[in-house]
Amino acid sequence: MPGDASTGTFLQGLERGLAVIRAFSADTPSLTLSEVARDVGITPATARRILLTLEQLGYVRSDGRRFSLTPRVLALGWAYLSSLDLGDIAGPFMEELSAKTRESCSIATLDLPDIVYVARVPTSRIMTVALGVGARLPAYVTSMGRVLLAGLAEDELSAYLSSFEAEALTEYTVTSVDDLRDVIAKADVDGYALVDQELELGLRSIAVPIRDSRGRAVAALNVSAHASRSTPDSLREDVLEPLRECADQIGTALRRRGRI
Amino acid sequence: MPGDASTGTFLQGLERGLAVIRAFSADTPSLTLSEVARDVGITPATARRILLTLEQLGYVRSDGRRFSLTPRVLALGWAYLSSLDLGDIAGPFMEELSAKTRESCSIATLDLPDIVYVARVPTSRIMTVALGVGARLPAYVTSMGRVLLAGLAEDELSAYLSSFEAEALTEYTVTSVDDLRDVIAKADVDGYALVDQELELGLRSIAVPIRDSRGRAVAALNVSAHASRSTPDSLREDVLEPLRECADQIGTALRRRGRI
Repeated sequence: MPGDASTGTFLQGLERGLAVIRAFSADTPSLTLSEVARDVGITPATARRILLTLEQLGYVRSDGRRFSLTPRVLALGWAYLSSLDLGDIAGPFMEELSAKTRESCSIATLDLPDIVYVARVPTSRIMTVALGVGARLPAYVTSMGRVLLAGLAEDELSAYLSSFEAEALTEYTVTSVDDLRDVIAKADVDGYALVDQELELGLRSIAVPIRDSRGRAVAALNVSAHASRSTPDSLREDVLEPLRECADQIGTALRRRGRI
Repeated sequence: MPGDASTGTFLQGLERGLAVIRAFSADTPSLTLSEVARDVGITPATARRILLTLEQLGYVRSDGRRFSLTPRVLALGWAYLSSLDLGDIAGPFMEELSAKTRESCSIATLDLPDIVYVARVPTSRIMTVALGVGARLPAYVTSMGRVLLAGLAEDELSAYLSSFEAEALTEYTVTSVDDLRDVIAKADVDGYALVDQELELGLRSIAVPIRDSRGRAVAALNVSAHASRSTPDSLREDVLEPLRECADQIGTALRRRGRI
């Protein structure tokens, strides 16, 4: 039974501290105390206690007025990545798939409403750094997101769709809830999802689930290719089979090591 | 003035919550409540409150007995990475350097006693995923660590060296404090550091600092090469100059965007 704010179990200071860390971003690399208070929805006094605590712990630095995060924050995300140990376990299989298909491949997991990249083997030099581990994309418009959404329980999927807000990132983006429900159902039946320039013009991607011992899709593996180097048919005919084999190998290896 | 546990400023729940997240690793991907309490040095009751809070917030999942981290934890590290925005700012320069030298290059910052990788452009397929962003290595045995240590104030460096514990990772590893002080002093004079198979047999690396507007080494850029493809002289003669140019370009770009 999770902690509950109404009981003494829940640690509000911890919740707010994590929210303060997440308040920093590319648009707001540094924040004043009052900006943090406003963004997180806490009093300046609380923001001050949190920022000074984080500063003493080395997660935040300050020039006296503006606060920013330090690389120590990466140790938090790294705790998850190293506990998943994808580098050692999935890395070799991903290298092989990337060499075989001559395209980038990635593994992502679901953190609704986003997917989060947890491993990536790039080929195209572009995006190597930009779309690295930890990067987030909206689940509805990515091939990995759709196979993961297809793996949700009906009530989880309905909850997601009920609060779903689509943005037409390109002229091809599926934006209506009904259409999205259809493509997710199709991904469930097909066992894969193919997204054709819905996220970005010129970018195609095909993904399959990585399943745990109970058959649940706990992660997804994809291959993404520039439209100039691929067609939807070429992805289905040339990439889908090696992609499935690789996902099975990774799933087996992760299950054997008790990671999923 | 940082928060202080002796005053009401310091939020111990936040400190302990972050320590609990960091208790998970490749060796301990899942932990029981009592294991967390023991590893972090808190009471089981406190560990329970923290774990249930983290579970309710979606950073931790549980099978009832064992707890593990969720991908949401990556959002914390990502807050730092995206606020640094290295992908967009440094990425293109790193791609160019990697293409020019045909070797992997990386950017790391100091989080004593470690360096933390914040950007990486791999060429060799082998460590692509394993040594990704967020990975940590001991500062004393890496080229990036040595140029960053060379940039520390004397009292900071002395504090580091006084608690310095060396491990002979290879037969070439510098392990004595005096020798380490010498190579750090040399890195300061030379403006670069070259590490020859001290971290791993067959691996050479050369690094230079990335400086902020006050000339402080806030990050380091390196090129690493297999010994089979390089000699210490070839790294100095062929790689050092493009490496320096790249670090200057990145430093200028980061300063212009107010990231350092």
